[in-house]
Amino acid sequence: MKLYSFAPATNAQRVLMFVAEKEIDLPVVEVNVREGALFEPSYLAMNPFSVVPFLELDDGTCIGESVAICRYLEELYPNPPLCGVTAKDRALVEMWNRRIEIDGFMPVVHALRNVSPGFKGRVVPGTRTDLPQSGAITERGKAQFGILVDRLDAQLRQHAFVAGETFTIADITGYFMVETARRIDLDLPEHCSNVLRWYNTVASRASVPH
Amino acid sequence: MKLYSFAPATNAQRVLMFVAEKEIDLPVVEVNVREGALFEPSYLAMNPFSVVPFLELDDGTCIGESVAICRYLEELYPNPPLCGVTAKDRALVEMWNRRIEIDGFMPVVHALRNVSPGFKGRVVPGTRTDLPQSGAITERGKAQFGILVDRLDAQLRQHAFVAGETFTIADITGYFMVETARRIDLDLPEHCSNVLRWYNTVASRASVPH
Repeated sequence: MKLYSFAPATNAQRVLMFVAEKEIDLPVVEVNVREGALFEPSYLAMNPFSVVPFLELDDGTCIGESVAICRYLEELYPNPPLCGVTAKDRALVEMWNRRIEIDGFMPVVHALRNVSPGFKGRVVPGTRTDLPQSGAITERGKAQFGILVDRLDAQLRQHAFVAGETFTIADITGYFMVETARRIDLDLPEHCSNVLRWYNTVASRASVPH
Repeated sequence: MKLYSFAPATNAQRVLMFVAEKEIDLPVVEVNVREGALFEPSYLAMNPFSVVPFLELDDGTCIGESVAICRYLEELYPNPPLCGVTAKDRALVEMWNRRIEIDGFMPVVHALRNVSPGFKGRVVPGTRTDLPQSGAITERGKAQFGILVDRLDAQLRQHAFVAGETFTIADITGYFMVETARRIDLDLPEHCSNVLRWYNTVASRASVPH
């Protein structure tokens, strides 16, 4: 089993942090993403969606999508659990991971891709197109981030971590949402003191990629 | 256990189709979404993200997010399996469900919300704001849909269903992606003959909500 990765890619870092939390010894292949390696035939055969990370199993099957990879690793290496222990726990972790990812993480990813010079011609993940960067998409992403962190603050007023009292995959997603927002100078609002407290706790974990 | 729903809401329909495929006898509470019921204190206490569907368990716990609800129901009612049977199957179904949802379904949902008069003031799901509808977001969503269906056509050239040879949750997500696109007059391109064949097969299932 091998993980195809690209060190600066946020989604690769999400999986690497998950792997580090579980202390899995997983070989990593670094891909020349910026030079277009993912569009070469050998990579297209493994992942026709042309993104990292993806996991190649020993039988050659390739699993793409960060959360699909993490869930697969959770089945193989259940401890420490990062996706919940009971059916109800698992549902609540999935709910919170999706709220963070859909309402906050993806909006700031699109905000970044539509303003950062490095993403010109690559506004849609896994593509090279002439679709223009769009200020309207960046502004909308920032607004969605603001709405999400207010809602997250209410949750973290009552709980230590995003999905309750233990660290889970939802905290990893949340951490990288905040990191991505910082790349477009979007800091956590001062009134979100519970999110700030939680963020500092997560940022101090040994599993954070450097 | 009760499902809070709103018949015209696409995400509610996704869960209802999943429930129908499994023939689960699940009581449904219809919520007055258009009249703002989700922003009343009793509903905010159940789901502070103010969206349907959500599932209320007998102990009062509320599970939001369509896929979290479906995964929970899959654990309680494993047959017929709609999320994969082995760990590898489950990973591939999750991968395909996410590819369809993130790269195609969500872009067309945002495209619709940013152009349809009925969504004025509600461009971000679960909110009432003065954020304006944005033509740039609609255009980007349409472009992303076009990229995704081309990639999906290559997959469906080789397989009967989105994630392989059996019907799964990824087909439900894909079906509602196409339905949402049609609401903004975005039809499947004629060159995507494999997607068209698959769509007609899924559309004829008895589980499709009417």
